[in-house]
Amino acid sequence: MQVADSDTPTTPADRTQRLYNFSAGPAVLPEQVLLEARDELPVYDHVGASIMEISHRSAAYDEVEESARRLIKKLLGLGDDWHVLFLQGGASMQFHQVPLNFLPEDGTADYVVTGRWGSKAIKEAKLIGSARVAASSEADHFAHIPPEHTWDLDPDAAYVHVTTNETVNGNQFSWDPSLDVPVVTDASSEFLSRPMDVEGYGLIYAGAQKNLGPAGVTVVLVRESFLEARKQPLPTMLDYGTHAERRFNTPPVFPIYMVEKVCRWLDELGGVEAIHTINQRKAKKVYNAIDGTDFYRGTVDPKDRSTMNVTFRLPSEELETKFIKEAEHRGLLSLKGHRSVGGIRASLYNALPEAAVDALVDFMDAFERQYG
Amino acid sequence: MQVADSDTPTTPADRTQRLYNFSAGPAVLPEQVLLEARDELPVYDHVGASIMEISHRSAAYDEVEESARRLIKKLLGLGDDWHVLFLQGGASMQFHQVPLNFLPEDGTADYVVTGRWGSKAIKEAKLIGSARVAASSEADHFAHIPPEHTWDLDPDAAYVHVTTNETVNGNQFSWDPSLDVPVVTDASSEFLSRPMDVEGYGLIYAGAQKNLGPAGVTVVLVRESFLEARKQPLPTMLDYGTHAERRFNTPPVFPIYMVEKVCRWLDELGGVEAIHTINQRKAKKVYNAIDGTDFYRGTVDPKDRSTMNVTFRLPSEELETKFIKEAEHRGLLSLKGHRSVGGIRASLYNALPEAAVDALVDFMDAFERQYG
Repeated sequence: MQVADSDTPTTPADRTQRLYNFSAGPAVLPEQVLLEARDELPVYDHVGASIMEISHRSAAYDEVEESARRLIKKLLGLGDDWHVLFLQGGASMQFHQVPLNFLPEDGTADYVVTGRWGSKAIKEAKLIGSARVAASSEADHFAHIPPEHTWDLDPDAAYVHVTTNETVNGNQFSWDPSLDVPVVTDASSEFLSRPMDVEGYGLIYAGAQKNLGPAGVTVVLVRESFLEARKQPLPTMLDYGTHAERRFNTPPVFPIYMVEKVCRWLDELGGVEAIHTINQRKAKKVYNAIDGTDFYRGTVDPKDRSTMNVTFRLPSEELETKFIKEAEHRGLLSLKGHRSVGGIRASLYNALPEAAVDALVDFMDAFERQYG
Repeated sequence: MQVADSDTPTTPADRTQRLYNFSAGPAVLPEQVLLEARDELPVYDHVGASIMEISHRSAAYDEVEESARRLIKKLLGLGDDWHVLFLQGGASMQFHQVPLNFLPEDGTADYVVTGRWGSKAIKEAKLIGSARVAASSEADHFAHIPPEHTWDLDPDAAYVHVTTNETVNGNQFSWDPSLDVPVVTDASSEFLSRPMDVEGYGLIYAGAQKNLGPAGVTVVLVRESFLEARKQPLPTMLDYGTHAERRFNTPPVFPIYMVEKVCRWLDELGGVEAIHTINQRKAKKVYNAIDGTDFYRGTVDPKDRSTMNVTFRLPSEELETKFIKEAEHRGLLSLKGHRSVGGIRASLYNALPEAAVDALVDFMDAFERQYG
């Protein structure tokens, strides 16, 4: 791994080597996992073929998928009342599938909207039935999470939908809501980055391509008691019950195989408690760099800042463009904020080495000294 | 690649090597493609990360996806009126998505049912609206394809759905239907195995995990004029128009990257005309072995036999079990028929080397001599 130093190098970073990758997703994976996958091509273990070429009903694949399921349950401390499903279509499909399963025709669901993804989620729910905004921070461009006591909740809602980490806007819940009705969360960009108190949740979903694996698989955790409340009949593939009951269709084998490896890596590292400590330390380093100067300006209320997606601005868009370009030159990749909000975004997912954060902080300091 | 010989070996085939893989899907991939993927781990080209770890909106990924799209259009000779979409959920999701988009509430759609997959397709359509069986070969266990002149077609149908190759039942259309209404086909297990006359089709879909790549991506070809007839509004992710218009959500990057490589391999080999010649030769060798004796018995009317999935029976289930076991011992993998029908199934997809077919035929001969 090449390390950026704080003097401006004359030649750009060598991109045939692995560089520091701050991509918001698809995102950095543990190098060890990629090397393992490489070693298992073109033959996996003792099956006479690669993992991609064998039946999804074979013992060898079954072992991989069951191990991934077992590890996720272990890492989050889930009991037997939870199903772990490996679906497809990412959070975008869940925006439809959740209300399709759980929002009754004559009922309602509450949405807490704290960013771009929550906004998309409620839009899809409204195509199915009555979805209410129980709280929103849109008025201040999602710079904070509305405190729970301000939420306008309907006691008869089928569920309350939240987005516990907003990838684009850089905010994160600092608590796991527990309400009178089941909570559903889009945890895509924080999944397995911290311990979760799952007590209040009925369903937790996450696209894999942030903390969990490559794009192409969506993990859905659903509690049996919540699952039982779903509507019937439903299109077979979109009925969570189909997948809770059995392996119905051909799953995205390779993405799930990678998820299993990532979970194993995390488990060996000490699990979500250990990674949470590291994640908090990594985030604190960048936020300290932001707060230590007027040159950089965080976009989110400090109490609601994300440990995963650190968003900040520079004094001008010109400087932001220059910042991104010089960072790339030094091998600090993908620091550009989402096209819908601009600015800088450093995603500090589980697999991003702490050395990458140190390199970023050094660069921020050097850049400010040069242009501040 | 290890080759099975026709004398019974005393030690089983070495499964740390690539063996002959007759899996019906996920299925064998070209070895060259797997080796290329291996060489591109943990760094792809010049991007400082693997292909799985970069933004789906990056130039590097964009090039991969556009190349895959371009190659599919080239291989099938598709004009500008065709969209090539990379979706998720396999044929099972298409069973829902097709009627969701195209079967009007007050309209109807016709289904030609020639096997297990067609039966599943119409079941999902009936959850959406009025879906009629225009023809079926269920009465003879899908041993034939009902000729077009026997189809009971509704001239006002929104579309006619066919399954041009039935993976489980081993039958295949010998023509591309062109009717008064647009034809939709599930081409999963024959996609890119032969030239197609696309004139009569409005939509063609295929799960990748047979001829095209690993599981986790579904290719949908949809004609613009057919697309325009879809219902509105639709759930965003399930609206074909969403994906025809732009890259809406995070695609399954790695599966698409592999599809691009497989298409490139096929193009270099001479395209669908060249592979079709090879596929016909491969299939003929196995069917000749079946027809040359009373020991083996094909399950499908010779005129409707599949070049991709060759299904046959032995005199008893005991002999079938023994056949599968001895074949495995010699390194001929995954010859067991689908659990719903039993017997033997040899899938001879594009990437299965002809030498595998020769080895199978030798084994069939040796097995009959021993047990016949």
